[in-house]
Amino acid sequence: MAENTGLKNRGKTKSDVDERRMAAEEFTGAKLETIGSYGFDPERASKNIENMIGTVQLPLGYAGPMKIAGDHAQGEFLIPLATTEGALVASVSRGMSVISQSGGAAASVFDDFMTRAPVLRVDGIKHSREVMAWIDSHIEEIDEAVAGTTSHGKLAKIECFPDGRNLFLRFSFSTGDAMGMNMATIASEAVCRLIEKETGAVMVSVSGNMCSDKKPAAINMISGRGKTVIAEATIPKDIVESKLHTTAEAVVETNYRKNLVGSSMAGILGANAHAANMVAAIYIATGQDPAQVVGGSMTLTTCEVVDGDLYICVRMPAVEVGTVGGGTSLPCQSEALEMIGCKGEGKAKKFSEIVAATVLAGELSTLAAQAAGQLGQAHKALGR
Amino acid sequence: MAENTGLKNRGKTKSDVDERRMAAEEFTGAKLETIGSYGFDPERASKNIENMIGTVQLPLGYAGPMKIAGDHAQGEFLIPLATTEGALVASVSRGMSVISQSGGAAASVFDDFMTRAPVLRVDGIKHSREVMAWIDSHIEEIDEAVAGTTSHGKLAKIECFPDGRNLFLRFSFSTGDAMGMNMATIASEAVCRLIEKETGAVMVSVSGNMCSDKKPAAINMISGRGKTVIAEATIPKDIVESKLHTTAEAVVETNYRKNLVGSSMAGILGANAHAANMVAAIYIATGQDPAQVVGGSMTLTTCEVVDGDLYICVRMPAVEVGTVGGGTSLPCQSEALEMIGCKGEGKAKKFSEIVAATVLAGELSTLAAQAAGQLGQAHKALGR
Amino acid sequence: MAENTGLKNRGKTKSDVDERRMAAEEFTGAKLETIGSYGFDPERASKNIENMIGTVQLPLGYAGPMKIAGDHAQGEFLIPLATTEGALVASVSRGMSVISQSGGAAASVFDDFMTRAPVLRVDGIKHSREVMAWIDSHIEEIDEAVAGTTSHGKLAKIECFPDGRNLFLRFSFSTGDAMGMNMATIASEAVCRLIEKETGAVMVSVSGNMCSDKKPAAINMISGRGKTVIAEATIPKDIVESKLHTTAEAVVETNYRKNLVGSSMAGILGANAHAANMVAAIYIATGQDPAQVVGGSMTLTTCEVVDGDLYICVRMPAVEVGTVGGGTSLPCQSEALEMIGCKGEGKAKKFSEIVAATVLAGELSTLAAQAAGQLGQAHKALGR
Amino acid sequence: MAENTGLKNRGKTKSDVDERRMAAEEFTGAKLETIGSYGFDPERASKNIENMIGTVQLPLGYAGPMKIAGDHAQGEFLIPLATTEGALVASVSRGMSVISQSGGAAASVFDDFMTRAPVLRVDGIKHSREVMAWIDSHIEEIDEAVAGTTSHGKLAKIECFPDGRNLFLRFSFSTGDAMGMNMATIASEAVCRLIEKETGAVMVSVSGNMCSDKKPAAINMISGRGKTVIAEATIPKDIVESKLHTTAEAVVETNYRKNLVGSSMAGILGANAHAANMVAAIYIATGQDPAQVVGGSMTLTTCEVVDGDLYICVRMPAVEVGTVGGGTSLPCQSEALEMIGCKGEGKAKKFSEIVAATVLAGELSTLAAQAAGQLGQAHKALGR
Repeated sequence: MAENTGLKNRGKTKSDVDERRMAAEEFTGAKLETIGSYGFDPERASKNIENMIGTVQLPLGYAGPMKIAGDHAQGEFLIPLATTEGALVASVSRGMSVISQSGGAAASVFDDFMTRAPVLRVDGIKHSREVMAWIDSHIEEIDEAVAGTTSHGKLAKIECFPDGRNLFLRFSFSTGDAMGMNMATIASEAVCRLIEKETGAVMVSVSGNMCSDKKPAAINMISGRGKTVIAEATIPKDIVESKLHTTAEAVVETNYRKNLVGSSMAGILGANAHAANMVAAIYIATGQDPAQVVGGSMTLTTCEVVDGDLYICVRMPAVEVGTVGGGTSLPCQSEALEMIGCKGEGKAKKFSEIVAATVLAGELSTLAAQAAGQLGQAHKALGR
Repeated sequence: MAENTGLKNRGKTKSDVDERRMAAEEFTGAKLETIGSYGFDPERASKNIENMIGTVQLPLGYAGPMKIAGDHAQGEFLIPLATTEGALVASVSRGMSVISQSGGAAASVFDDFMTRAPVLRVDGIKHSREVMAWIDSHIEEIDEAVAGTTSHGKLAKIECFPDGRNLFLRFSFSTGDAMGMNMATIASEAVCRLIEKETGAVMVSVSGNMCSDKKPAAINMISGRGKTVIAEATIPKDIVESKLHTTAEAVVETNYRKNLVGSSMAGILGANAHAANMVAAIYIATGQDPAQVVGGSMTLTTCEVVDGDLYICVRMPAVEVGTVGGGTSLPCQSEALEMIGCKGEGKAKKFSEIVAATVLAGELSTLAAQAAGQLGQAHKALGR
Repeated sequence: MAENTGLKNRGKTKSDVDERRMAAEEFTGAKLETIGSYGFDPERASKNIENMIGTVQLPLGYAGPMKIAGDHAQGEFLIPLATTEGALVASVSRGMSVISQSGGAAASVFDDFMTRAPVLRVDGIKHSREVMAWIDSHIEEIDEAVAGTTSHGKLAKIECFPDGRNLFLRFSFSTGDAMGMNMATIASEAVCRLIEKETGAVMVSVSGNMCSDKKPAAINMISGRGKTVIAEATIPKDIVESKLHTTAEAVVETNYRKNLVGSSMAGILGANAHAANMVAAIYIATGQDPAQVVGGSMTLTTCEVVDGDLYICVRMPAVEVGTVGGGTSLPCQSEALEMIGCKGEGKAKKFSEIVAATVLAGELSTLAAQAAGQLGQAHKALGR
Repeated sequence: MAENTGLKNRGKTKSDVDERRMAAEEFTGAKLETIGSYGFDPERASKNIENMIGTVQLPLGYAGPMKIAGDHAQGEFLIPLATTEGALVASVSRGMSVISQSGGAAASVFDDFMTRAPVLRVDGIKHSREVMAWIDSHIEEIDEAVAGTTSHGKLAKIECFPDGRNLFLRFSFSTGDAMGMNMATIASEAVCRLIEKETGAVMVSVSGNMCSDKKPAAINMISGRGKTVIAEATIPKDIVESKLHTTAEAVVETNYRKNLVGSSMAGILGANAHAANMVAAIYIATGQDPAQVVGGSMTLTTCEVVDGDLYICVRMPAVEVGTVGGGTSLPCQSEALEMIGCKGEGKAKKFSEIVAATVLAGELSTLAAQAAGQLGQAHKALGR
């Protein structure tokens, strides 16, 4: 750590933050006035950051209202979005308006677990077999080891991926309403310490990258991580034409050429127009981990003409979110969660459905705009 | 757009923002007090967002100071990081301290262009050939079409990817110190309108996903997008031991089992420990597009023992950043850029080297912590 | 079919084949003499091909003898390899000689099932849920439907991958000693007909590409298809030096730079030197489906220095082979299987271990040759 | 090599082969009678294999005749296919019949070069820069080094991919009518020896896996390897219905759900039904390298309804073939090439178009069969 730089004390009060910011101003020669001018007591961020000097303030807007008929999210929502990309909120809002007029979006969570995948060093094939056999026959001890670290998390399964002198264990936990990565990390490590003791395998990393956290990983796209959420809507033909100024067929063609064929040719994991935009905006607004936008970027968007109407769907295999813990209790972020009724316990699935519905709206709007040949112009008119 | 909801007016002044926020409070029943309590005139965000109701404030800290000896970034830097993940800033700072004690990080930009890849509908093979031939023989007209849309952007090359009735054109622009995606979009569209007129091809989407923006795409990992940046450092053996409490060999082994083998088995594009964390933190702090964290997540981290010391390197093929435009002129973000001397013209390459050096420090710290078996504990002690 | 060309009759006897070949000679103007000069009664191929005009004869050699200490393959083997690439057999044989001198290769089958993944058209999220629920609660009927089509195959599991109006079902079957794809196809279709009747879902393709057969698919690399086999060997330091003319360290470095880093940068599924060469040679020799070389090409090769010696391992997640059915009962292919004691029932696992051991030998030899800087020269001396 | 086993002499005459086969029979206890009964002088295979004991004979049939209107392949062709998979030839032939009735397939080669990508060990960023600068300024010396190794191959370009202490150079050669990998390997090594001498970089492997040979690599899918070939056909609506017993719309739907959506969800490089089947069958028949089926397996198949008719296209980015060298001069293989007028100089592009047209026919037939719900039944009736 930088304690030897003389730049700062280690405290977390407002005066500590101020003092540290002044030292930073002195060191860098920059004026950090707006950074220092924010609206809450910095001690509330004491578990979220070190070396705090203030805040960075991102413009927050809303899209909607959007009608959602999810398994957990039901009603009309104003979605908080933090972005610096002009036209994004307007575009998403346009999609929401159209979807709402069409009866709203359906949404559902199909899977829900947080994964952690330590890598163990073993002696080879035979040792791998022994470790795997030990695990198979000691699930109770393993569950106890987990229970010793967390009361919220439950181990759902362990998948073993042997490879010579590497043995990867992919643990899946249900983690309640927390995103749960920390819980999963600590529990996985506890299990591995037990395995080390009993089998002689050595945990080289608690995260062996088959987890996989914040990396674009086929394993997450295929097997899921966090919540696997699907959202869909059907836009009647006449609304496509009157509100989106295009046709269902043109949107389907755009999705086919761009998202399906183009993504295949580019070697993309997933196939979407700009899911990461909506994911980033809602994650940052609500205190999610913004690096987990990566998981959201693997969204698969499909469009079909059904009885003349436009069916659109987003499949999101890795929505790694929570409504407790992490950045969710910071003041602004907490308020943003309140806007959509997603603060606290019992809300994580609801929240993930809202995320998917928001992505759906953004995909619809952009695909329709491109189908109508409008993208460049829209940016010119509204944007940066 | 949501103009029909009666929720808000369309203005951008503080009072408009306040009014809109109050309407949102009424609609949602949530108190949005902190969101409304921020430190700058919202008109400064007028090109960055619509439906603004305030700001979301993320804790901002710094890591460093870090010694960087890049081609463009040279000196000691305090790096602004916005995060809500406890322990991240401390961990990155630890890496920076170690690297600085070891003489600093080298960094270099190996490639620099922004891409946009429209997809055209053509009649088939023969038509593709004709369009490609037309492009080949009309570069001047194409350059003129570009020049008609931008004075900053220059078209560097057009790559053609034919496929039956799809023809993808991947345009590469140099865009100065802007991230440049908008510039690239508008210029690409202008060129496509010309191609449409001359060849009968039809631009179905100005972004055919071979660009590829905000998606985890092999084409970006291989061919680059934005800046391709590499940063490296060599940590003497004794510093590895005394400061990181591990050995060069153990770090190399961790990188091998986790980042190389684990990433291969998980089907990851790139191979790193948590590059996206650092990328997200510095992007958000400085007004970059946080959805472009996806490009940063494809970082390749390599470690070697060289003469007993630890060599570590990050290769980042898609650092899509700018020091003008986008969110960079927002007040906090602008101050954060000032902290590292990266505000405005002539700074984008310097900034991208700082990004890579920051990722390098974060990778080093995490790999070393895992090598020392400390990851779980560190989170327990410091964290969220 | 080409029955309307007048080129041939539809019979399968030698005289039919001869007549058809003569018609082909007439049509094409080519002399097909060697094609017509082969060593078995063509009626033996009557289930393997249509429009037969003779055979194509590939040079068949052997590599070995190789010592294998697998779970199923145990002893010394001469491995039949069919190839037209000069130097390949010699190179593999060199690797086998070295491995045998070092005590032989270990090998083990970690997983074994054949997959088929139909795609159903459903109405959307709600319908997907219903179909999935029906499946969950009707496993007995499903097993009966499977039993109605095969007495050898057993359904091990069904994984559901919902996506809007697509529902993918990935069936895993144990198929005894047959490669089993046909069995899996027919059984999957029977189950889908049942599902169609009960749920209103429509099977659009019995193979929805999540199977995935003969395509380079992350899902197979991660979840396996056919047999997941690992083989390993440890080559004492002095043998590396005296027989391979290099060092353990140099082989490990070659594997690191080429197979691990190079494969990551190239976006390869798997990481190996030339596994497909050995897989193709042994598959063709023994009547396997040569298009399934694709599965073998996703091999992961790792090398480590362990106590100064060279440890080498291949992980093959998709060895799709059989010792009954397909091309295995053709005369030459049957003889080749006899050479390694792998003809008929009870031999498929043994055979897959031999495949992996052969790949191991080829990887070792090539990596060592490259480590010694010899690749180009070897080809010059021996090769085409 | 196995010279120490006493199993064989080292000669290449018929009697040497016989003697060696008898030794193998003795060693293995297997009768290798059919293997020993083949139709040509084994000395003709002397450059294609070592330790030869005979041949493996694969049933050879033909599909067609097929009408092709390529840039190089023009006329009606009977395509030689070697396979052991019952129903394959019949299915491909059905596709050819339909395409021929519809006016034939168009085909075109869009790119043509063989690649080799050595990996050099360098000291780091600075050294990478120096090596890259040296290459840039010594193209003439490099061309001379190439010319010293081959009179057929011409170096088209060198792409540099730096990464810390690894520097990958991807050489692209035009190699005339040879597949050209050996030529490319030898020339690349010569250039690297020059670079080593002049820059101090060390070639660790002449193949650093960014080539990428016989591995499923995104770089080949995107940038091409060997020939990039596209073939297409339009099947009139009434022929789809009368001959394929389905509709254009149903084929398009099948392609969408299976090849596009399914492949995306499975993480497949490319998107096709079974391209590898046709590629394997024609490669083996004509003496191509069967391990290069991997390149063919990355085919992208697209289908569209155009004016009510069915448009179908295959894009093959990596058709690595030749009509001289390798296995092409073996007796049966040579005859098979004669069948399609592709023996010898000046024929490689023609041959690659025939490959693509054959894949097109196979894709059409299978997609149509699945669209008509017939796949399982067809196998039951015809097949293994």
